[in-house]
Parts: sequence; C-alpha cells; structure tokens
Amino acid sequence: MTNAFPPNQQFRLAARPLGMPRHEDWQFHEEAVAEAQDGGIVVKVLYLSLDPAMRGWMNEGKSYIRPVAIGEVMRAGGLGIVVASKSPRFQEGDYVVGGTGVQRYWSGPADDKTAAFTRIDPALAPPTAWLNTLGMPGMTAFFGLREVGQPKAGETVVVSGAAGAVGMTVGQVAKKMGCRVVGIAGGEDKCRFVVEQLGFDACIDYKAGPVHAGLKEHCPQGVDVYFDNVGGDILDAVLTRINMKARIVICGAISQYNATSQVKGPANYLSLLVNRARMEGMVVFDYAPRYAEGVATLAQWMQEGSVKSIEYVTEGFERFPEALLMLFEGRNLGKLVLKVAEA
Amino acid sequence: MTNAFPPNQQFRLAARPLGMPRHEDWQFHEEAVAEAQDGGIVVKVLYLSLDPAMRGWMNEGKSYIRPVAIGEVMRAGGLGIVVASKSPRFQEGDYVVGGTGVQRYWSGPADDKTAAFTRIDPALAPPTAWLNTLGMPGMTAFFGLREVGQPKAGETVVVSGAAGAVGMTVGQVAKKMGCRVVGIAGGEDKCRFVVEQLGFDACIDYKAGPVHAGLKEHCPQGVDVYFDNVGGDILDAVLTRINMKARIVICGAISQYNATSQVKGPANYLSLLVNRARMEGMVVFDYAPRYAEGVATLAQWMQEGSVKSIEYVTEGFERFPEALLMLFEGRNLGKLVLKVAEA
Repeated sequence: MTNAFPPNQQFRLAARPLGMPRHEDWQFHEEAVAEAQDGGIVVKVLYLSLDPAMRGWMNEGKSYIRPVAIGEVMRAGGLGIVVASKSPRFQEGDYVVGGTGVQRYWSGPADDKTAAFTRIDPALAPPTAWLNTLGMPGMTAFFGLREVGQPKAGETVVVSGAAGAVGMTVGQVAKKMGCRVVGIAGGEDKCRFVVEQLGFDACIDYKAGPVHAGLKEHCPQGVDVYFDNVGGDILDAVLTRINMKARIVICGAISQYNATSQVKGPANYLSLLVNRARMEGMVVFDYAPRYAEGVATLAQWMQEGSVKSIEYVTEGFERFPEALLMLFEGRNLGKLVLKVAEA
Repeated sequence: MTNAFPPNQQFRLAARPLGMPRHEDWQFHEEAVAEAQDGGIVVKVLYLSLDPAMRGWMNEGKSYIRPVAIGEVMRAGGLGIVVASKSPRFQEGDYVVGGTGVQRYWSGPADDKTAAFTRIDPALAPPTAWLNTLGMPGMTAFFGLREVGQPKAGETVVVSGAAGAVGMTVGQVAKKMGCRVVGIAGGEDKCRFVVEQLGFDACIDYKAGPVHAGLKEHCPQGVDVYFDNVGGDILDAVLTRINMKARIVICGAISQYNATSQVKGPANYLSLLVNRARMEGMVVFDYAPRYAEGVATLAQWMQEGSVKSIEYVTEGFERFPEALLMLFEGRNLGKLVLKVAEA
C-alpha cells in the first residue's frame, strides 16, 4: 500500500531496561503510515516531550498507568499537525497535542482514548510551550502545588529538580502565590538559571555541598511545602527542616528511577510524626477535567510576562535514545523537547 | 524535714541509652516527699503508664517534646490519689491522672503545666482504663484514626501493634465506624486476643509469615487506612497493598526506637505517588482541647460493652526498668501498666 507520506519511523520497546536504558532496549522500526479511515486522522509529529516518567513506563508491574509492552511503540506526549482527516473533529492544519508515541506519524481514530488529542491555539503560545508550561509538566506543577501542597502567602516552598520542566513552573507559580521559593538543582549553571531566569529567591546546588546546610541558610523560617521530583538523599535532607504541618508533594523520584537495587526510602520520615506533617502523592491525570483552567491561568501569566516557559530543544528523531538519557544526566536547562520535523 | 509520708522513690535518667535501655541508664533515688505548699498538692502514684514513646523521650535532640534531662525523674503518665492538698482545685481522696513521672509521690503546684493533672471519675471506669482507653493511648487512637485516617464505612482499616494500647482501640473504633478491621501483631496469642477479645475481623501474625501474604489474604479489597505504630518492614509491606487515595497515619515506629543504626525509611514510599495516597504524622497533644469529647464517647462505648479497655498489669515499682522492656519484647496483651501501690 502506498500513500502520500514518507515511511513512518518508530522507536519500539525491545526489552525492559535494567538501570539506565541502553540502545539494545530499543527497536527502530519503519512501516508505511496507515491511511486515515472514516472518523480517523493522521498526525505528523513535530515535537516530542521527553519526561522522567517515561522511564517508569518501561518497567513491568503495576503503576498509575500500564507499562509499555515489549514490541509496542514507546509512549510519549507530542505536538503535531493534522495532515489528513476523515473526522469532523479535526481539520487538516490543526495543531494538536496528545499521546503520539515516539514516531513520526500517528494514525487512528480521532477520538482515540489513549492518544487523547486536543486542538491547541498556536497563537496563544509557541508550540513547545504546549509540551511544557501549558502541557503535562505545567499541569503537574500547577495542580500539584496548589491542590496538594496548598502553600499560603508568606510560607517557604522548596522544589527539587528546580531547573526541570515541572520544578520550573512549581517555583514560578509559588512566587505568584506570595511564597519564598528555594530551588534545589545540580550545578552552578542550573542554579543561576533558576534564580536569574525564573526569579526564585535562592537555589541550592546539591553538587556543591550538603543540601542540609543550604536549606539552613536559605530557609531560615523552615520549609512549609516541599515539592519533590527527585527522592533519595535530598528528600531526606528536606525532612530534617520541615515546619509543623508541612506538606510534601511526592511528584517523582528521578534519583531512583534507574536504581537497580531497592529504592532508598526516606529514613527521616518520622519527621512527619514530630511535625504533624504529611507526604502525599499526586498524578497529573487526576486533574484532566481541570486542565482548561490550568492552561488559561498559565497562558495569561505567560502573556503578562510573569511566568516563563523555557524549553531545551534537541533535534533529530533518530537521536531519541540519547536524548532521553539527557534527562538523567541532568544536562537540560528547562523542559527537554525533541524536535522531530518542521510543520 | 520529716512528714507523714514514707520516702519518695524515683527512677531518674542516668545516661542516654544506646539501643535498648539498660540498668545502668537508670538511677534509683530516694528522697523525702516535699510537703504541699500553698496551692500545692501531693499525689500518691497508684499506677504508671508504660509507653513506647518513653523510649524517644530518653534520646537527645529535637522532637515533639523536650528530652528528659540527665538526672531528671523519668517522664511518665500516672494515675494517683491526692493525699494532701493546699489547693482549692483538688481535695484529698480525689483520683487524678497526669504526668507524675516514675516515682511514688508527686508534689508541687496543683496547676503545674507539665503534670497537667485532671480529676477523673473512678465510677465511670476502672482506674487502669484511665491510662488506656480513656487516657493517652485511647485519645491517640480515637483522634488519630478519625481525624487523620478518616475511615469511611465499608473501607478496610489495618492497624499494626494491634494488641498494644493504641492499636487495640484503633481497631475497636474502626469497627464502630463500620470498617473491615485487620490487625497486625507478633505471635499467635496476640492474634487470637485481637480477634477473639477485641472483635477484629482478622489478625496477621508477622512472626508466622510474610505480612504481604497476610494482607493479600485478609484485605481482598486492598487497604484504605493504615494506622502505623511500628514502622520498618511492616510499613513497607502495607505500602504495596494500599488503595487509591489511601491514608497512612504515622503514629509511631516501635520497630525503630531502639535502632542503633539509621532508621529504615519506607522503601516503597513511591506507592504514595502511584496511589495518590498520603502519609501523615499525628501527635495526641494537638487534640488536648478535645479530650473530653474523646473520653465521653469512649466511656459510653465501654459502658455499652462495644469497646473494651484491656490492661496488662505488672506489679512492683522497683521493677520499672524490666517492665519498660516488656514493651519492646512484645510480651504484653493490651496496655502495659505498672502497679505501684494500693489506694
């Protein structure tokens, strides 16, 4: 069967990685793009979102979402343009975001539940912002901080992974809410980025010295809300500095995602008891019915210039395996995005 | 100076224990009972409450309450009778509960903030119940379960240390609230006690096999509320079986109190994320303004026969050091109480 499109290229999961994903864990696959059926669309992928959560999806076992199967196209969020439509829901030329997977073309029913495409307004913000502040990371930050962390004006909010996609927005939203905001990030460049570009009050470089000392210095009033993207020793350090009735949002644990031995539990968790504090997990999908509210608020703040959406764009579809590793090597300032094609 | 009383005997903290407290960590001390001054009372101690929390008070360092100082009378709750009063607040013959410390006589101002004596009605319940279901353990269970655990009828509540003072009441209150209640305790005797005497639906003997398997068997609908008194591996096992939006009440961690190495953090804490669950610490003192409500409710349930207050009474003031260790050896069925004297 031939059609108007060049061959589709895909990265499929070949094996479940042990520790850091390796080249052998991926299968590069080429096949023809399936033509749009009745009610169907074809989406050309322009940008792919690269996220720490993807590492979890590669593991077997129960989680908040089923694992990617062996032989299946790797799950990923993407931004694309509709290049063929036999559905009244979308027109050719529409920009959409959704679960495109790691491939150049997505083809299927316009109302596919897994892909869950939504049309975006490219005039509202640059395309990559839809995978960042106006996408999953932004929604995670916005709802996780506000609904689970519940910071009050004047409180101190600490966020780890501060230069990453979620942390970046957590800190900026916390500033909007009138909090003192202290980031934790790895390296001088990231810390400078967080303070100078994003407007955090301070940033602790965990590679430069003990986090505990940094917290003592930069959170003289203690920590009221901790938004945790990293887990491990940093979570433990923050636990020693929390205030009474503190709230810890467990959003991720990137330090543990490639662990080949058992995850390190927070040894200082009894600080929750002493401080009547709580630690609560959040998954962004629970807030799907309210994404429109999050997008509208963040888009307005972006237009006012009080919140920035900063992406670190790396190019080349075939470089996906290396690009993904950049997340764990901590090389990106801002949200990591893979550019796949021009519109 | 002589007075009407035999010499007061006390156990004072001689040294901060490393691991399990030893005899050398205590100083047995005798001194005359100080006579009641204007506004003062003398309380003869009848029963002392022996609690896991006492181990924590022996350590140095910040906690929810200041550590007992070296040379100070060991802190303890007790029930006694007023044997001398120069205060209008209490009369000779009144029964009181409060922070008597580990001694035969307490003497001081009737309104002493640390002792915080309150008069009890000995007709309402047997004296030892005032150190158990109607005392701190009961208040801990009542408010911790209801305010922090927030179980709903039909949910599954799991409680560790189920045969202990707090756990016993947690389970019985959860039954009153219409929940399925599963205890975790060490040994066949304790498990039989918990099911047959206290009316739990089931009890998992953590000494007989893996807790995980027991949870699978006895909590077929998963765990909605876990009231944790023990920490360690049992907390980790429960974390693998929690439901969406589960609530874990961190009340204690008796498995870790004598740890000489670092506390073991819950390695499975990321289950909080997957399940959008929360883990929250509680300290009973926060509910002091509401104790009257707790006492009234529990006393009524006791009178109706739907809640039992069961104490394990061991005798002999001079046996305090060994008696305290019984808690950590897990030898008591029900609340451990040391009988010091007859009224």
